[in-house]
Amino acid sequence: MPIPMAVCELLSVGTELILGDILNTNTRFLSQALAALGIAVQRHGTVGDNPERLAEDLRAALVRSRIVILTGGLGPTADDITKEVVCAVLGIPLVLDARQMAAIERFFRVRGAPMGETNRKQALVPEGCTVLYNDNGTAPGCWIPWKGNVVVLLPGPPREMEPMFREKVVPLLRPFSSGVIVSHQLRTVGLGESLMAERAGELLDGENPTVAPYAKDGESYLRITAAAPDETQAEALCAPVIGQLAERLRGYVYGIDQLLEEAAVKALRQAGKTVALAESCTGGGISTLLTEVPGASEVFGWGVVSYANECKQALLGVREETLRLWGAVSEPCAKEMAEGIRAASGADFGLAVTGIAGPGSSNTDKSAGLIWLAIAGQNGVRVRQLSTGRNDRRYNRTIAAKQALALLLEELQKKATPSNGGSV
Amino acid sequence: MPIPMAVCELLSVGTELILGDILNTNTRFLSQALAALGIAVQRHGTVGDNPERLAEDLRAALVRSRIVILTGGLGPTADDITKEVVCAVLGIPLVLDARQMAAIERFFRVRGAPMGETNRKQALVPEGCTVLYNDNGTAPGCWIPWKGNVVVLLPGPPREMEPMFREKVVPLLRPFSSGVIVSHQLRTVGLGESLMAERAGELLDGENPTVAPYAKDGESYLRITAAAPDETQAEALCAPVIGQLAERLRGYVYGIDQLLEEAAVKALRQAGKTVALAESCTGGGISTLLTEVPGASEVFGWGVVSYANECKQALLGVREETLRLWGAVSEPCAKEMAEGIRAASGADFGLAVTGIAGPGSSNTDKSAGLIWLAIAGQNGVRVRQLSTGRNDRRYNRTIAAKQALALLLEELQKKATPSNGGSV
Repeated sequence: MPIPMAVCELLSVGTELILGDILNTNTRFLSQALAALGIAVQRHGTVGDNPERLAEDLRAALVRSRIVILTGGLGPTADDITKEVVCAVLGIPLVLDARQMAAIERFFRVRGAPMGETNRKQALVPEGCTVLYNDNGTAPGCWIPWKGNVVVLLPGPPREMEPMFREKVVPLLRPFSSGVIVSHQLRTVGLGESLMAERAGELLDGENPTVAPYAKDGESYLRITAAAPDETQAEALCAPVIGQLAERLRGYVYGIDQLLEEAAVKALRQAGKTVALAESCTGGGISTLLTEVPGASEVFGWGVVSYANECKQALLGVREETLRLWGAVSEPCAKEMAEGIRAASGADFGLAVTGIAGPGSSNTDKSAGLIWLAIAGQNGVRVRQLSTGRNDRRYNRTIAAKQALALLLEELQKKATPSNGGSV
Repeated sequence: MPIPMAVCELLSVGTELILGDILNTNTRFLSQALAALGIAVQRHGTVGDNPERLAEDLRAALVRSRIVILTGGLGPTADDITKEVVCAVLGIPLVLDARQMAAIERFFRVRGAPMGETNRKQALVPEGCTVLYNDNGTAPGCWIPWKGNVVVLLPGPPREMEPMFREKVVPLLRPFSSGVIVSHQLRTVGLGESLMAERAGELLDGENPTVAPYAKDGESYLRITAAAPDETQAEALCAPVIGQLAERLRGYVYGIDQLLEEAAVKALRQAGKTVALAESCTGGGISTLLTEVPGASEVFGWGVVSYANECKQALLGVREETLRLWGAVSEPCAKEMAEGIRAASGADFGLAVTGIAGPGSSNTDKSAGLIWLAIAGQNGVRVRQLSTGRNDRRYNRTIAAKQALALLLEELQKKATPSNGGSV
């Protein structure tokens, strides 16, 4: 990176993390947010609710990093020790913050609940710090300048930590940022990570922007990251590289910085079209993805989860002989499902999926990972077969849902159509 | 804990972790697995693909911990440095492992792909180590005894790391375990974390087993953890405490060590009953949860995602005047949805949900977080209203799905019924 950056490290505090009871999502959130600010995170550390180990690790961090951000251990109970240990290490006394005390008293008064003596502890803050008042809980955060360094204390629950960081810490961190980092994702579907990387070619070797390939559950994307003194310059570095990559990956790129379901809802809305769903092996997974997008109701109104053959017949009009002759996991069944839900709903598109998610299989001639997709529109119905080759229920369901949305997007974008069939 | 335990720490290696590009799930998996073995994890650390910082942190870890487990950085490319740095720190040379070399050559031969010179690197292992052959990739793990300590290298991708740890590392770790830790979750629904903790009372103060309360998205649970020389003794310590807790939480406990959807599928199967779903605001979320459980097709065959009013009328038989007079988010509509899907499907139970997930609301008199649930059975239909008080789409959808499954379980278990209505 061409810009010198302030060095930062993250220290998470909590026995529940050390025991693996909860997943640490805070370090990921903070790492991404700090990178965007042009602040280099070099280490993540986690310790339990143990004063000696926390003090030892904090001392080590202060020696090597200009910014140390601690999360967790700010609660009201005896095992919440972060503030006390930090003050002991820095040699700063804890003092009562009147505004925070009033906020805690109000919190309990509003709820008509008695306030415990332990809650008083949450109104104590390191002397001379900037108090980061918590809009989503009773634990305040603290911004503590110390000998040219800064120590930041944030609450552990992501619902409290994330807005506090965004709204109150980011403005304070700006002076430590000697530039900005801008990052975009060029998202593709239908192409594996290695083929995507191959097509990207020597663009993967760039230094500013850097281009890195990633893959997860049937989607592959390239992350394009540029560093510059300001956002305009960083964007200007990214733009031509994104353009070249999009050209090389033509037919597989479905969007920039957006999820497949967001792209689908957006494309439907722009085209003024609606979709209805008939799902078998995905069990409502496509519906769930689409309706996670606010405003999905404008483009999606009807879904049927037809796990049972009787449901396929009654609600989707799949014919008995189709099921008898070809089975529920077959091209004819997928077609009839798509046509059936389109006819019942009056939607512009009927999208259907039927497959074998696994584990195991009750069909002797069909194996887990076999999936049929179909999309019915005004010009007829188009099908696609997938074979994931895996006996992994979660994976197969995810792939089927993603590929179904990709098929819908293709139809909407009238993209060059890869040949029917093919494995994932 | 009454048993002295070998001290362990985890070191994750990878710039993608430090940048927040991926979430670190390995530390959680390993922490849980090590706790179960009676090995105390005291620290998690993460560094990027940087030889100096990795070497520094490894040296610090070796001084204080008997077992150091590193994940990541075993790939074939130049930025994969873990093996090289570990060998340099420990003063052990890298040597070619013939079996691993043959496995890599076979890997490429089978795929008909040319083998790059860089892949040769993956056949190099620290001299004298126990090679942990990788059944799911080309990077071998290593078990390296060193001056009474042990350093374990594992690949970063969870799909490779987790089976390698379970199958190859756990047997080697047994001698370091001076006992076992057994942990159970007593899972409840319909009771907040604080009320649950209040009822658990002084049982939360126990030392062996320990009892700790947790809450996530509308479910609360107690974790009961006992340490003992063997599993039988650890289970014997847990059993009476679990019994007492279940008694104090009667009416709210739905299972031990199982998710709500697993409990629902199991209870339906045991009762020989089926359920059909009519979902509005959850958008297929209940369907998706149920069908994540293998074998769900035995108890679930029909689902309708009725986002549009026309769909509620056509597929569920909701009456036009109900929608006109009371709206889609109303007690009468929820009732008719539940009765309608039960009648259409012939299932024993019809379960319905309609509500306002947010953000915002098109209804002036109804706000985000208002949810109506209904369950129809042979004895009629029962409804429940929820008010989450939050304008948070994801949260409201999750709460609605969980509470719908809880309502189904209540009906199946014929539990003492809490009064209709109430907030979450």
